[in-house]
Amino acid sequence: MGGSLARGLKALELTPHIAGFSLDPADGQLALDSGSIDELALDPSAAAAGRDLVVYATPLGVTLELLREHSRVWGEAVVTDLVSLKSPIMDTMTELSEGSRYVGSHPMAGGAATGFAASTGGLFEDAPIWLVRGEGATRAAEGLEQLWCALGASPLWVDPSEHDANMTWVSHLPQLVANSLAAALANAGYMPSDLGPGGKDMIRLAESSPEMWRDLLDASAPHLVEALNATGGELGRVAAALECRDLTAVVELMRRTKEWRGGP
Amino acid sequence: MGGSLARGLKALELTPHIAGFSLDPADGQLALDSGSIDELALDPSAAAAGRDLVVYATPLGVTLELLREHSRVWGEAVVTDLVSLKSPIMDTMTELSEGSRYVGSHPMAGGAATGFAASTGGLFEDAPIWLVRGEGATRAAEGLEQLWCALGASPLWVDPSEHDANMTWVSHLPQLVANSLAAALANAGYMPSDLGPGGKDMIRLAESSPEMWRDLLDASAPHLVEALNATGGELGRVAAALECRDLTAVVELMRRTKEWRGGP
Repeated sequence: MGGSLARGLKALELTPHIAGFSLDPADGQLALDSGSIDELALDPSAAAAGRDLVVYATPLGVTLELLREHSRVWGEAVVTDLVSLKSPIMDTMTELSEGSRYVGSHPMAGGAATGFAASTGGLFEDAPIWLVRGEGATRAAEGLEQLWCALGASPLWVDPSEHDANMTWVSHLPQLVANSLAAALANAGYMPSDLGPGGKDMIRLAESSPEMWRDLLDASAPHLVEALNATGGELGRVAAALECRDLTAVVELMRRTKEWRGGP
Repeated sequence: MGGSLARGLKALELTPHIAGFSLDPADGQLALDSGSIDELALDPSAAAAGRDLVVYATPLGVTLELLREHSRVWGEAVVTDLVSLKSPIMDTMTELSEGSRYVGSHPMAGGAATGFAASTGGLFEDAPIWLVRGEGATRAAEGLEQLWCALGASPLWVDPSEHDANMTWVSHLPQLVANSLAAALANAGYMPSDLGPGGKDMIRLAESSPEMWRDLLDASAPHLVEALNATGGELGRVAAALECRDLTAVVELMRRTKEWRGGP
């Protein structure tokens, strides 16, 4: 997602100077060669030092580590990140007394693929961006909002805890349902190519990077257990209805969810 | 799917004369006006009488009723259907002593949308088509195979019971997982628009027609209960692992299913 952001910024009328760093050297070189970044920093801290804006497009755990390491080099910079949970980062920035430079971003965009090769300049067009604001981060908030708007995105200010509880349901839950369905199919001896178009949709998320998800799932565990159990409960109710050949109950569930699916 | 088949046939070099009937008069008229069918029959039995090939693009229950009603009018016709379960139809045709004219087709193509407006001529290109053959249906088998090949599809002969058990896992299970996930999200107060692209993939199947599914779910109930419980078991194991903050187990599941997803 960092690559898509760099590409998007480079497509603007007034393009900023962008220094980048990637843990994957080949990926960083690819971004440099493509002209999406102007400078490949030697290490993360060099990329973060003396900038107007520092963007962490890293998994949650790595982001928390880097924030602790970098607080001394930021100077006047505004800091943001693209992690899909906001409370752990907000808490860390508050703890570091760096709230006034922090605005967290969570773009609702992008697929399971990672790396610069998967990036695309128009990724954020029309995408909702959830934003959280550190204490006293007035200037930072204005700047970030303008930046996302310039990229065609729709920024929306939210409360970090509420945002994270919501993410558990609308993002982490579907992810693990895809993995669980894939596991059941794999155990029963089926292969992805056995599935029709609808079934393929249902296992696409199994492509997601387990490493990227680890910290997110850890941080959202309490809400996530509730969401998984609620979904398991629905599956159990369908199975029980079918066991009794109560097709009316199953059709009723399908009607209700079809109506919901057709709504806003 | 009947509309897509008519359109596909009309795009061939040697186009057949096609008589159609739809329970929705407006839909039938649309097909006639578009030139995809040559004749709008007055009732289903008129569409089925005196033809070379009769295709039932109807839900399972309706198909079984029509087969019983029409066996007297078929004359020399070869009979096929597009229902996604094959045993109940094969059993009915055998019972009617009509096996020698029957070849069942199950195209692995198409989405949740129904009606002529959702049809597309190239729908079957590169689509796998599962075929089952009634007893003694040598001529019919040859004809149907040629027809599907002419439309660019990949026909494959299968055993009806084995096919139906497989369909339960690769098609009916993902369908009900989508409905169950949608129900859990709806109950928790979320709306489809709250979901990101991955989550939206996971509830798309909730659009499917409950009426179309009713008979299919009834017919596949025993296998389906097993498949639903297996998936519920996987969800329960993930929830239990998260409850104990055993992230290693969750990441292991994600790795295993990601690898499976990347396979054939």
